[in-house]
Amino acid sequence: MARWKPDARQRLVVAALDLFAGQGYDETTVAQIAERAGLTRSTFFRLFADKREILAAGQETLTRLLVEGIEAAADDATPMTAVAAGLERASGEMTAFNRELGPRLHAAIAASEELQSRDALKSIGLAAAMVDALMRRGVAAPTARVAAELGVAAFKVGFARWTDPARDDDPGELAAHTLAALDDLRAAAAQLD
Amino acid sequence: MARWKPDARQRLVVAALDLFAGQGYDETTVAQIAERAGLTRSTFFRLFADKREILAAGQETLTRLLVEGIEAAADDATPMTAVAAGLERASGEMTAFNRELGPRLHAAIAASEELQSRDALKSIGLAAAMVDALMRRGVAAPTARVAAELGVAAFKVGFARWTDPARDDDPGELAAHTLAALDDLRAAAAQLD
Repeated sequence: MARWKPDARQRLVVAALDLFAGQGYDETTVAQIAERAGLTRSTFFRLFADKREILAAGQETLTRLLVEGIEAAADDATPMTAVAAGLERASGEMTAFNRELGPRLHAAIAASEELQSRDALKSIGLAAAMVDALMRRGVAAPTARVAAELGVAAFKVGFARWTDPARDDDPGELAAHTLAALDDLRAAAAQLD
Repeated sequence: MARWKPDARQRLVVAALDLFAGQGYDETTVAQIAERAGLTRSTFFRLFADKREILAAGQETLTRLLVEGIEAAADDATPMTAVAAGLERASGEMTAFNRELGPRLHAAIAASEELQSRDALKSIGLAAAMVDALMRRGVAAPTARVAAELGVAAFKVGFARWTDPARDDDPGELAAHTLAALDDLRAAAAQLD
């Protein structure tokens, strides 16, 4: 996998995450983010409404991709097959840039209770969007809820494995990790009793 | 179920939630909470460190009870039976006061993005504590994760049903609602494929 060559938007995201991790989310200003990225404040504001949007933009994309994958699954797909299709669609769009971002995102979240709260809300938002998409396919509410929770957990586990800096240089495709995690959770769900 | 007769602590919680719902969490001061409860600021600070703790105290209790229930389950209990024991323990400690609080808590959270984030983090904290308790019983990580997620979802659904003001005056025991919700989710988990 080639190293990413960051554009202005990506440089701002990296600079922001590094500052969030180093000095905290609340303490970080847009001016500091722009300076660290070697860009101007006006460039920042051309690309992002505020520092909050640095994190929100990625979430919106991820939610959209997961839902698109579920919607595009075959009509007779089981709930888990539909969730797997969502994971595959979202995983397939993640790039080397997303992989570089993983440990930075993790460090920023670990350093800030504010970001922990946002991240928790993000997980719940992802699950809710997947529940809606599954119910539009005719899946009953409790089944949709369980399938969506497993889907979110699988994406998180798979993404963490894919971006783990302790792993070797070729992590393979993200989809392989998220789908393997989904298989593990599906097997686990069959062993609850 | 008898109406609760609030003590100072409970009056402060009710006053705080009503203010959070009416004017927002950020905009509410300790002085306003104390005034609405007919108490002094010094009484507030004898009972709570700050307004944030109004919400945190309930979470700590709930987490402790869920974990205690899981720990007290029979050695040969399946993961779902252990989770059910946690729900039963926690549900059994909820009082008429907690039931009165339900719709207020819901309204306060609906009115504030700050509280939505806190609530999301609370759900993740509950699940993490249950995962740890299950793994200490020897349950494998993915199974513990699925069982804990179902347990948290069951508590939420059951609590929402128990506290729903549109329901009749005798809601029965909370445990009946949380355990029924867990059964629904368990059945749903068996229908994922």
